Amino acid sequence: MAEGIKVIRELLNSDFRLDKLFASETIFDISKDQFVLTEERDLKKISFLKTPQTALGLFKIPQQNLGVLEDLTVALDGVRDPGNLGTIIRLCDWFGVKNLVCSTDTVDCFNPKVIQSTMGSITRVNVVYKNLSEFLQSQDIVSYGTFMDGENVYQKRLQQKSVLVLGNEANGINPEIENLISEKISIPQFGKSQETESLNVATATAIFLSEFRRN
Amino acid sequence: MAEGIKVIRELLNSDFRLDKLFASETIFDISKDQFVLTEERDLKKISFLKTPQTALGLFKIPQQNLGVLEDLTVALDGVRDPGNLGTIIRLCDWFGVKNLVCSTDTVDCFNPKVIQSTMGSITRVNVVYKNLSEFLQSQDIVSYGTFMDGENVYQKRLQQKSVLVLGNEANGINPEIENLISEKISIPQFGKSQETESLNVATATAIFLSEFRRN
Repeated sequence: MAEGIKVIRELLNSDFRLDKLFASETIFDISKDQFVLTEERDLKKISFLKTPQTALGLFKIPQQNLGVLEDLTVALDGVRDPGNLGTIIRLCDWFGVKNLVCSTDTVDCFNPKVIQSTMGSITRVNVVYKNLSEFLQSQDIVSYGTFMDGENVYQKRLQQKSVLVLGNEANGINPEIENLISEKISIPQFGKSQETESLNVATATAIFLSEFRRN
Repeated sequence: MAEGIKVIRELLNSDFRLDKLFASETIFDISKDQFVLTEERDLKKISFLKTPQTALGLFKIPQQNLGVLEDLTVALDGVRDPGNLGTIIRLCDWFGVKNLVCSTDTVDCFNPKVIQSTMGSITRVNVVYKNLSEFLQSQDIVSYGTFMDGENVYQKRLQQKSVLVLGNEANGINPEIENLISEKISIPQFGKSQETESLNVATATAIFLSEFRRN
């Protein structure tokens, strides 16, 4: 389910297939049987947003598969917050990361909050749910994992053909996955306080992807 | 107003001065007249959170002043989202940025949502509200501004003693401020689509601060 003209337009221009469109006027060039003329007060009732948009689209969930990994792939181990997943998908789009592998306990990428926060990036990033342990064992490329006690990422030579694993908001990467990771990396803290919380997973992803791509 | 034991403990251990603490049991070592024994169902009523915490503290808003700027200072031009401001304060704490200057139309840093999302970082970052145009005119250090058409930040030699200006979520940096900026910088896009939205202001801040501090 996607709300708002911009996101719906991007989904219509992608591999996503429309099921039904609910809108208060005919905005898009779609077939008649896909369109349901809907008054604004009814759109308000079905909307997930605080400020409902003038159009709401219902799309079929696409089948997504991983091909051979030729470039950097991001993998998430149990990310639960829809806003964080949405931000990470948007970052993958910006930094040209085609494949995002999510553990089966990661929040659903078709959750309306995720769809909304990706701002259309969901159409350009291939999001696949997998048993992360089996996925890592099936690959023979280097895997980087982010840990508080990892090596300083600014001093590492990062390989592009690799998997970057990020962990759950509260618990990080779980021990079973940790055992499968070849290199532990970390963003050093420059502020001096020991009270400082570690970076949020979405902001950490921003910095790691920047480090991978900057050279 | 701050909710939750961790945040309240950090505020108590800082320059912030407690006015009243509402909690269902005596947790902190504070004077009797500051403590209001409050049942959980009443805490629920006064809480700003969906999942109320067991303690809620009311603190006096501190007087904060800018000293002489000896190191990197971050300035925000009209950031409106409390979550973005909270994330940026947390990033300043992580990257050792002491001073954050906010334009007067930036969201209030003492908004409960901001306090909550800073995770205690608000006690370690000096947040000052100023007329941004007057502030920039009063400084004779280099100012960097983030623009879509700025120079590639990865190829710039960044000066630490400077001001980094970030703009509003929808409109970026306003033209009056743009005229006062010495260097325009930008994070290049690696994905190929023209539909990709620019990075969110909080994730962009993460990458820029990383670039300033990494060398």
